[in-house]
Amino acid sequence: MIMHYAVNMIPVGVLGASGYAGRELCSLIARHPRFSLAFATANEQRGQSVRLGGETVTFAAPDDVDLSHAALVFSALPHGASFAWVERARAAGAKVVDLSSDLRPGHGAAHVPYGMPELGAEARRAIRDADIVANPGCYPTSILLALAPLLAADLVRADATIIANSASGVTGAGNSPKRELLFAELSQDFRAYGVGNTHRHLKEMRATLDAFGSEAELVFTPHLLPVARGILSTITVPLSESVADPSAFYRGAYATERFMEVSDAPPTLRDVAHRNVVALSATMLAGTRQPMLLVTSAIDNLVKGAAGQAVQNANLMLGLDECTGLPA
Amino acid sequence: MIMHYAVNMIPVGVLGASGYAGRELCSLIARHPRFSLAFATANEQRGQSVRLGGETVTFAAPDDVDLSHAALVFSALPHGASFAWVERARAAGAKVVDLSSDLRPGHGAAHVPYGMPELGAEARRAIRDADIVANPGCYPTSILLALAPLLAADLVRADATIIANSASGVTGAGNSPKRELLFAELSQDFRAYGVGNTHRHLKEMRATLDAFGSEAELVFTPHLLPVARGILSTITVPLSESVADPSAFYRGAYATERFMEVSDAPPTLRDVAHRNVVALSATMLAGTRQPMLLVTSAIDNLVKGAAGQAVQNANLMLGLDECTGLPA
Amino acid sequence: MIMHYAVNMIPVGVLGASGYAGRELCSLIARHPRFSLAFATANEQRGQSVRLGGETVTFAAPDDVDLSHAALVFSALPHGASFAWVERARAAGAKVVDLSSDLRPGHGAAHVPYGMPELGAEARRAIRDADIVANPGCYPTSILLALAPLLAADLVRADATIIANSASGVTGAGNSPKRELLFAELSQDFRAYGVGNTHRHLKEMRATLDAFGSEAELVFTPHLLPVARGILSTITVPLSESVADPSAFYRGAYATERFMEVSDAPPTLRDVAHRNVVALSATMLAGTRQPMLLVTSAIDNLVKGAAGQAVQNANLMLGLDECTGLPA
Amino acid sequence: MIMHYAVNMIPVGVLGASGYAGRELCSLIARHPRFSLAFATANEQRGQSVRLGGETVTFAAPDDVDLSHAALVFSALPHGASFAWVERARAAGAKVVDLSSDLRPGHGAAHVPYGMPELGAEARRAIRDADIVANPGCYPTSILLALAPLLAADLVRADATIIANSASGVTGAGNSPKRELLFAELSQDFRAYGVGNTHRHLKEMRATLDAFGSEAELVFTPHLLPVARGILSTITVPLSESVADPSAFYRGAYATERFMEVSDAPPTLRDVAHRNVVALSATMLAGTRQPMLLVTSAIDNLVKGAAGQAVQNANLMLGLDECTGLPA
Repeated sequence: MIMHYAVNMIPVGVLGASGYAGRELCSLIARHPRFSLAFATANEQRGQSVRLGGETVTFAAPDDVDLSHAALVFSALPHGASFAWVERARAAGAKVVDLSSDLRPGHGAAHVPYGMPELGAEARRAIRDADIVANPGCYPTSILLALAPLLAADLVRADATIIANSASGVTGAGNSPKRELLFAELSQDFRAYGVGNTHRHLKEMRATLDAFGSEAELVFTPHLLPVARGILSTITVPLSESVADPSAFYRGAYATERFMEVSDAPPTLRDVAHRNVVALSATMLAGTRQPMLLVTSAIDNLVKGAAGQAVQNANLMLGLDECTGLPA
Repeated sequence: MIMHYAVNMIPVGVLGASGYAGRELCSLIARHPRFSLAFATANEQRGQSVRLGGETVTFAAPDDVDLSHAALVFSALPHGASFAWVERARAAGAKVVDLSSDLRPGHGAAHVPYGMPELGAEARRAIRDADIVANPGCYPTSILLALAPLLAADLVRADATIIANSASGVTGAGNSPKRELLFAELSQDFRAYGVGNTHRHLKEMRATLDAFGSEAELVFTPHLLPVARGILSTITVPLSESVADPSAFYRGAYATERFMEVSDAPPTLRDVAHRNVVALSATMLAGTRQPMLLVTSAIDNLVKGAAGQAVQNANLMLGLDECTGLPA
Repeated sequence: MIMHYAVNMIPVGVLGASGYAGRELCSLIARHPRFSLAFATANEQRGQSVRLGGETVTFAAPDDVDLSHAALVFSALPHGASFAWVERARAAGAKVVDLSSDLRPGHGAAHVPYGMPELGAEARRAIRDADIVANPGCYPTSILLALAPLLAADLVRADATIIANSASGVTGAGNSPKRELLFAELSQDFRAYGVGNTHRHLKEMRATLDAFGSEAELVFTPHLLPVARGILSTITVPLSESVADPSAFYRGAYATERFMEVSDAPPTLRDVAHRNVVALSATMLAGTRQPMLLVTSAIDNLVKGAAGQAVQNANLMLGLDECTGLPA
Repeated sequence: MIMHYAVNMIPVGVLGASGYAGRELCSLIARHPRFSLAFATANEQRGQSVRLGGETVTFAAPDDVDLSHAALVFSALPHGASFAWVERARAAGAKVVDLSSDLRPGHGAAHVPYGMPELGAEARRAIRDADIVANPGCYPTSILLALAPLLAADLVRADATIIANSASGVTGAGNSPKRELLFAELSQDFRAYGVGNTHRHLKEMRATLDAFGSEAELVFTPHLLPVARGILSTITVPLSESVADPSAFYRGAYATERFMEVSDAPPTLRDVAHRNVVALSATMLAGTRQPMLLVTSAIDNLVKGAAGQAVQNANLMLGLDECTGLPA
C-alpha cells in the first residue's frame, strides 16, 4: 500500500470536542483519509491537549475559532446549547451535522433531515442534499433500524404496543463528574432509569414511526450497564402476520447496506465495539396468541450511535463514499 | 447481646454444595442461629475444604454421608440429578428443600408445594406443612413476586401479553468452567440468550399464572450481565384498569411481608446484594392506549433467588420464624 | 441463639458520615450489639437519608448535633478539617477515634496512640487507656502488619530497602465526583500514582519503623485498581537471616490475634471483602544473594483499613471485647 | 489517500490461532497492507469460523495445511508443543516467528535471535538476518525495555536487586476454560501468583541481563488484574549514580524508536490498549540512601506483548518497514 495524501483534504471542525462523542469524532477524523481537523472546541478544557486517534488535539475556546475554516462542522454541544452554534456555522458557510437533539424530528424546530441513511432511499437522498443534518440519538439508532424493515413492509400491527428495553454503557451518560457515575457506584450494578415512558429520545422515535405512517405505540425503558460502551436493545413487536424466516427477511431488507449485520444468534456488545454497525438478530416468539417478533440489536453508542453515524452523514453531504474512514 | 447457643441446634445437610448456590447455602447455614451443618456433599470436589460464612467446610462424597443425620436436606444438585436424591433423603426421614427444577410446578412430577411464601397465605401454609418443597428459580422469583399482587387483585387483562426482560449476573450460569464464562469473554459485554420464549423457567411461571386463574401470556427474555450476582427484571403489564398509586398498591399488598421492599425509585442490584429481599418499584406508563404498568424488581440471584429463599422455606418447614438467620 | 439487647447501649456518633468510610462506620454501628448511633453528620448531604446496615440513617448538619450525646465520636472528616472537631468532641466529654491523618504519628501533632492493636501488647494497652486514638491509614495497615513481626524479631536488615507496592480499590479515593474516578475512565484500567515515594501515608509508616528502632528505609508505590474495595500489598524485605518457614513464623507471631490470617497461598481481595482482617502470606525469594522475604497482604480498605479498625479501637477504648460487632 | 494494493502480498500462516495471541495475530494480519493469511490452524476448534480484523477466518486442522504456502509462519502454539512445528515450518522453507518460550534465551535450546528490536542496533540486525526469531514473553517486554537504556549506560549497580512487580489482564492467562478464570471468580479480585521468584519468564530476563554484562539480580512478582488486556510493571532499580532528568534520559535513549513512548506522568493501561507500544515513565525515588529509580511501563499484552511484536519482527525479517500494519 502506497499512500498518496490527496491535495484536497476537506477541513472539518468539532464543537464540544471534550465529551465522549466529541473525542470519538476527533479520533475518527484523525483516521479519515479525506478529512482534516480544522478545529476542536471545548470551553472548560480549552488549551488542553489530548491524544485522539493517534493525533494530538488541542481544544480551542469556542470564540477563538473561525467557523468558516471548516467545510463542515460537527456539533457535539449539549442539547439546548447546540442550536445557536449550528446557526453560526451555517452563517459562516459551513455544512453542519448536529449531534444534539435540538433539530431532531419531534422537537418542534425547523425541519432538517434526520441522519439515519439506512431508513431508506429517500432518507439517504435527503441527507445527501442537506446543509444541516440532525444526527440521531443512540437509543433510537438501535431501535428504529430494528423496526424500519417491518414498518416499510407494513408488518407491524396498527394496534401494536412495541416494547423496547435498552441497556447502555456509561459513556452514554457523558463525562461530567457526577457521583452516581463513579466506578465505585456503578461497578457490579445495573438499573433502569427514565421509567414510565418519559425518555427524551421517545420524540424522535415517535416522529419516525409517524413518518412510516404507523400508529403502533412504543414503550421504551433504558437501563445503565457497568460497561464503558455499547447499547443492546431487546424489542418485542406484535406483527400483523408471522414472518417465516426473520433472519432472511432482515438480510433481504438490508442487502445493500454496508453497516447492517444480521446474524442468527443474538448480537453482543463485543461484536460491535469500536465499529460503525448495527448488529441484529430476530426470532418469532413461541406460544403467543398473535404473531410476535423478538429483535435484539447492538451498537457501539459512541460510533454508530453518535460519532460514526455523524461521519457517515458527513460523507454523504460532502459527496464521498458513505463508508469512507469508518470502521465496519 | 449475649449469645446463648441453644442445646437443640437443628442439623441440616447440603447436597451439591460446591456450586454457587450450594456455597451460599453453606454460608447462610454457618451464620444461622438454629442450623448446624451436618454434611455438605460435592462429588468432583470431594475432600476439598473451603471457608464459607466464617466456617471451614469440607466437601464429602455423596455416597459417604448418612442422610438420616439431617433433619432437613437442601438439594442444590443439577436439574435431572436431584430427584433421585430427594427420594433418598425422604426415605432417610429428612425433610427436603429441592433447589433444582425437578419438582417445580409445570414439570409434570409429583405435586409438592412451590416455595415462594410471599405468593400468599395459602402458599405459605402449604410450605409450613410440607415435607418436600420445590424452591423456585431465580428469574421466576423476581418476576412472579412483581406480578402476584396484580394477579391476586385481578388487575391483569385476560388478553394481556406480559413482557419480562431480565438480566442476571454470571453466578446464575454456574461455576462449571466454560470458555464463554471467562472474565476475558464477558467483561464489557452484554447479551440476550434463550431468545424466542424458550427458557425452562417459563414452565413454573406459566403454572403459577394458571394457579392464579390468569390467562395472560408471558414473554420472557433473559440476558447475561457482567456482574457477579443479581437479577433485575423489567416487566410491562397490560392492566384492566389504571392503578392510581402503584407504590401504595404494592406497599399495601406486601405490608406484612418482611422480605418485600417497595420503593419509588427503580431498585438497583446494589440495593439487594447479599440480602434475602425482592426490591420493587412500579409506575404507570405514559401515553399508552390501554393502561399499562412498568414494574422493575431486583434480587440477589444467590440469596432470594436461591439459597436465601431455600433457608426461608426451611425455617417455615421446621417451625422457626421465617426470617431466622436471613440477611434482610 | 437468643438475643438479649443490653439495656445500656453505648451512644456513638459519626462525623463526616457521607463518605465511603463514614458510611461503612454507620453500617457497622447499626449491626454492633453494644453501639447505638447517636448522630451522623454530613455537611453537603445534610437532611438526606440512606439505608446503611439495615437501618435508615439521616445525615445531620455538623452544627446541629450535640457532641455530648455520644460517649465516643468517630471522625471521618477530611484531613486538615478533622482536628478542630476532635477537640470539640473532647471538650464535650466524648472519646474520639480520628480516621483522618491529622493526629497520626509523624504528623507533628500532639501525641495520641496509633490505633493498630496488632502492633503489640504495648500498642493495645495504649489504645485501651486512651481518650483519643489516631486510626491508621489503609495502606499502612496492610504494610505495617506485614512488617511488624519481622521488626519485633529484629529480622529486617539495618541497611534494608523495603519495597512496598500496593494496589487499592477506588473507594480509597473517596466519593467526591471527579472525572478521573468515573466508571468510563477506570474500567479496564490500572495505573501507579503518587510515584517517587511521596505519598502522605509514608509519614506514619516511617514513624512506626522508628518506633521499632529500625533504620530500614521504605519505598512505597500505590496503584489504583478497577475494583470497588480492597488493598493488596506486595512487599519485599531484605532480612538479616533466612527464615526457614515464613508461614510458621507469622502464625506464631499472630497466634493470639483474631483478625490476622496467615495462609500458604497468596491472599486475594475476595478473601477479605467486608471483613475486619489482614490476610497474609510470606515466602523466601529464590535466587537472591542475601535472604529476602516476599510478603503479600490483603485487607478490605473500608473495614480493617478504616471503619472496622476504628470500631476495633472503640471497642478497646470502651472496655468491650475487641471483636464485638466486627465481621471476621 | 489512494490505496494501491501491491501485487505481491506476502503469504503468512498462523499456528495455534484460536488462543488470544493467535486471534490477535489473525486480526493484525487481516489489516496488514503487505500480508495475506495463508492459513490459520487450531486443533480443537478446527472447522470453526470467526471474524477477526474484519475478515472471516476458518481454523484449519494443523495436519491439513501445507506449510510451504507461507513465506513466514507465526507459531502461537503452547510452550513445549511449538518447537516441533517450528522445525517443520523451517523444513518447508518458511521463516518462523515463535511466540512460545521454547526458543527464547535461557531455555537451553538452539540459539536464535530474541525478537526485541528496541534492545539495540545489534538486536535489530540479528532479527533482520534471521530465519527464526524467538518472540519475547509479555512480562519481559514490559520490564526489559524499561531496563535496557539503564543497562546500556551502565547505570545499574552491580550489586543491585531490581524489584519488578507486574500486573496483567486475564487474556495473559489464555482462553482455556478454567474455573479460576471465570468472570464470577475474578471480578472485583486481585492477587499475586508465581510468588517466590519462580515465574518461567525469569529465564529470558536473566539471559538478557547477562547479555548486557550485568550482575544485578531481579525479583519478579506477577499479579492477575480484573481487566481483559494490558500489563503494568512497576520497577525499582538501584543506580550507581543519580539521573538528573529520567524522562530526558529515556527520551534520548529511545529517540529513534517509533514504538517507545516516554511520558512524565505514569502510563496507564488505557494509554496502550490495542497499540504496539511500550509507554514508560521514570522518576528518582525520594529519601533513599543510595540513588534509586522507579520506572513504570505499560503495554498491551496481546499486542506489543505478543502478536504486535511478532508482526514487528516479521516485518524486519521480510525486509519491510518495521512499523508496517502496526497500530502505534
